[in-house]
Amino acid sequence: MNGSALNGLPVDHIAIAVSDLESAAALYERVTGAGSSPVEELPAQGVRVCFVGALELLEPLTEESTVARFIEKKGGGLHHVAYRTDDIRGELSRLADAGFQLIDREPRPGAGGHSVAFLHPKSTGGVLIELVQHGE
Amino acid sequence: MNGSALNGLPVDHIAIAVSDLESAAALYERVTGAGSSPVEELPAQGVRVCFVGALELLEPLTEESTVARFIEKKGGGLHHVAYRTDDIRGELSRLADAGFQLIDREPRPGAGGHSVAFLHPKSTGGVLIELVQHGE
Repeated sequence: MNGSALNGLPVDHIAIAVSDLESAAALYERVTGAGSSPVEELPAQGVRVCFVGALELLEPLTEESTVARFIEKKGGGLHHVAYRTDDIRGELSRLADAGFQLIDREPRPGAGGHSVAFLHPKSTGGVLIELVQHGE
Repeated sequence: MNGSALNGLPVDHIAIAVSDLESAAALYERVTGAGSSPVEELPAQGVRVCFVGALELLEPLTEESTVARFIEKKGGGLHHVAYRTDDIRGELSRLADAGFQLIDREPRPGAGGHSVAFLHPKSTGGVLIELVQHGE
């Protein structure tokens, strides 16, 4: 992405909070021309998830999930950006040492069985940032 | 991105509305390990812009800019997603035919001298989506 500035961690996906996963997936398929992945249920994170190309669509499973609260507060929309890393534990350690506030000090299972961890938006300019390590 | 779902338009960048471009650039450099591009001023769009890897940081030039209003209303954060296309006019025509509301019916100059056009978030699930054609 973006020529000369392409370095650092690559973007893995961009997440959008939605109220209705199937209708949102159909919408973003029409916008982007990408197909949808199968829907996955992640009770531990309180969401149903599918991907449309680089977009991860998140539908809350319960009214108590953080995604439900996000939709209630902000009406849905762009939720977080995920960066891919081959060393999620090393990145978490680097970011903690650099003073960033971690939501997850240890990686936990995310969509697709990948290892994920979130940084607190308070320390990242109001943007929720996820780290993802595939296939760990 | 995301294995089997990789098709359709590729993501060009993810934009973040910020109050202070230089401090935000330094912050996202530390998070992602990417370097910043030179700052560009786009008076027609009411913003100063720089890229940190795949992130486009937008600082309002005036209090009347849409980015200033976004920051006032939402406190900054994730602003839009941009998809890259080799045929921006064809995509705009396809999307208009599919019933999507266009903010720009014709491409206009964006950051880096690229041609850009926005879709109205009312018709895209509350997410502001940009199309970008490089080097047109």
